Amino acid sequence: MAFPIKGAVIFGQSGGPTAVINASAYGVIKEALSSPNVTNVYCAEYGIKGILNDRLFDMSKEDPEELKLLLKTPSSAFGSCRYKIADPEKDDTDYKRILEIFKKYDVRYFFYNGGNDSMDTCNKISRFFKNNEYDCRVIGIPKTIDNDLVSTDHCPGYGSAAKYIATTCAELLHDTVVYGKGTITVVEIMGRHAGWLTAASALSRVAGAGPDLIYMPEVTFDMDDFVERVKRIYAEKGNVFIAVSEGIHYSDGRFVSEAMVSENDGFGHAQLGGLAARLVAHLKGLTGAKVRGIEFSLLQRCASHIASKTDVDEAFNAGKTALEAAIAGETGKMVCFRREYENGEYICRYELAPLDGIANAEKKVPLEWIDTENCDIRQEFFDYALPLIRGGMDNSDVADIPRYVNLKKILAQ
Amino acid sequence: MAFPIKGAVIFGQSGGPTAVINASAYGVIKEALSSPNVTNVYCAEYGIKGILNDRLFDMSKEDPEELKLLLKTPSSAFGSCRYKIADPEKDDTDYKRILEIFKKYDVRYFFYNGGNDSMDTCNKISRFFKNNEYDCRVIGIPKTIDNDLVSTDHCPGYGSAAKYIATTCAELLHDTVVYGKGTITVVEIMGRHAGWLTAASALSRVAGAGPDLIYMPEVTFDMDDFVERVKRIYAEKGNVFIAVSEGIHYSDGRFVSEAMVSENDGFGHAQLGGLAARLVAHLKGLTGAKVRGIEFSLLQRCASHIASKTDVDEAFNAGKTALEAAIAGETGKMVCFRREYENGEYICRYELAPLDGIANAEKKVPLEWIDTENCDIRQEFFDYALPLIRGGMDNSDVADIPRYVNLKKILAQ
Repeated sequence: MAFPIKGAVIFGQSGGPTAVINASAYGVIKEALSSPNVTNVYCAEYGIKGILNDRLFDMSKEDPEELKLLLKTPSSAFGSCRYKIADPEKDDTDYKRILEIFKKYDVRYFFYNGGNDSMDTCNKISRFFKNNEYDCRVIGIPKTIDNDLVSTDHCPGYGSAAKYIATTCAELLHDTVVYGKGTITVVEIMGRHAGWLTAASALSRVAGAGPDLIYMPEVTFDMDDFVERVKRIYAEKGNVFIAVSEGIHYSDGRFVSEAMVSENDGFGHAQLGGLAARLVAHLKGLTGAKVRGIEFSLLQRCASHIASKTDVDEAFNAGKTALEAAIAGETGKMVCFRREYENGEYICRYELAPLDGIANAEKKVPLEWIDTENCDIRQEFFDYALPLIRGGMDNSDVADIPRYVNLKKILAQ
Repeated sequence: MAFPIKGAVIFGQSGGPTAVINASAYGVIKEALSSPNVTNVYCAEYGIKGILNDRLFDMSKEDPEELKLLLKTPSSAFGSCRYKIADPEKDDTDYKRILEIFKKYDVRYFFYNGGNDSMDTCNKISRFFKNNEYDCRVIGIPKTIDNDLVSTDHCPGYGSAAKYIATTCAELLHDTVVYGKGTITVVEIMGRHAGWLTAASALSRVAGAGPDLIYMPEVTFDMDDFVERVKRIYAEKGNVFIAVSEGIHYSDGRFVSEAMVSENDGFGHAQLGGLAARLVAHLKGLTGAKVRGIEFSLLQRCASHIASKTDVDEAFNAGKTALEAAIAGETGKMVCFRREYENGEYICRYELAPLDGIANAEKKVPLEWIDTENCDIRQEFFDYALPLIRGGMDNSDVADIPRYVNLKKILAQ
């Protein structure tokens, strides 16, 4: 194990926001501010772009009490980006600029908080530093509501999004049966390639009722079969509740959301609305039901008011672990979660895995967890997901609506 | 004041559900179960339809602890209806049937919980009983997220919906600026004729940022002016957040949501999506922005997980007051809220107003509260609405997702 090195920290946020990404930020910042090995703590504005543009906020200038509000503030408090960094072999301009900035501020610890692409960025920067013999420890911190990163049991951000989806579906399931019969509801949930979020709709069963049909990208979608099932369930029950992932696709790989444009309208007229609206158009008139599409849209990724306490705690610990690991000499790795059970109780262990192999892989819902015959999800998923949505936030101090962090954002000189 | 009469209670829920309608049910049921004047407490299945169909649930058969969960259960626990009762002069079939059922169970107290139409039903039944010399006290209990009932300062259900809208807009406003610039977001909010709910989007300013533009049905909508404003704000700020009521309309009275079908497409092609999607279609391509429409849809009326404590308490008290007033001899009236301030603190007083005059009137947002020049809402609205969204629910006992009431629903014989 390497000796600790003294130097500054840069932390950056990247990719789509979550309800708990700022909790990881707080984990890094709080730990870094109190570390004898850290000379300065900077947060980059808009992720890697803030480094390229020399826009770094000095955390020592912030009020420590205000920083605590990061635990309850949704989205990325320092701004995010979807900046795709070049391959250093093809174009090393960005890397040279990053190195220049790192040297300017004597940065020896770099933490990047994001999903797949961000881990790729992280990995490339880590290697570039190594190849250029610049001693800087680079650690990735996972974050994605999609829950699709490999090498980790689950990802910070997923638990809160899943809790939002489960709770909202439970509420909607109560709402849609209020007149007894006569509704078909299609709920569209995020997840382009993996069905983790859509599967979470089933957790509403804990409150009494769950979706009748669940469609995830792991399984090929068949429109005729879908329509038949909806008609059959409607005839039996008088109401149908369907959860669909935005990423469902036909056997030839075409996304249902895209493919339907040409099916419905070959004249180039604007087709408004997303997948839910399109499925609704397919179901309208087939039964006497009122057919309604509901998109959770951005609501599912930023609903900090219903964040999972477990998720917030783990996101914070992911940031804290990243800082501790870097001080201890680790680099080129991502913080990972390992699940354990002690006396039947779920416990999360924090580990590290090499960034190589994480960057361009995707973890899907295991096929054996999916009940394809009934378009449903099996008990294994409940066992997996329920511990992750456990615990609510203490909002007893919230008078009307939550107050979020309000940072001074004083630039480093 | 009339002497108390002994007899059974029927309580029914009507119209669109809210997050707190069951709190009013609990107010009636709890008070009735302990009243020496009440012989039986029945809840009608699907409102007035349950009376017509002789489907009444006996509340004495329920576990009192379970009934408490009504305070946290969204939607209408006993089922609702949109049944339009005939004018008794034209067709008194339903009324005769209602009277028959009331006599069968010796019902002397009737409580109907709903909005405009339900108060009309309530009023007609009350008069029919009077004309037929059947001694039964009829009290309406207000309920509507639309907040458009007259004779009352505000309506149970509004505070929770407003809190949902304010909090969700605050979260979305954080989410949409995460990449710095480049987004236009159109949020569609319920309210066909009154802008109370849409105005609540402005309450997100308490958390730091609010919508740039707010469009309510009280003010005529002009598409050209709208597009110009969005372009100007986008040029200035790089992001635009717009809250629109589903009920916005042109100067000729046509709803924008309906009128655009013919504008966009005269060929009868299906136009998918609601108002937000249609406005998005108008804004796309005008700037370099990603334009996104978000409909709060049913989510805004059933989000009990973020109910306003004030709203829950007041809804409960509305039910309790209804029972007390009926016992005391009142009939043909609706429970109303009067606002008072004691040492600057908001207090809600419970009163009664005649059902006549409530049934077919609608209360809109006062025009002097609307800043038409800036498409915004003035301080008067903040003063009005902030006390109504005050206080969160205690969800500390919620492990994963809330458990809702699970009633036995044993039919009266």
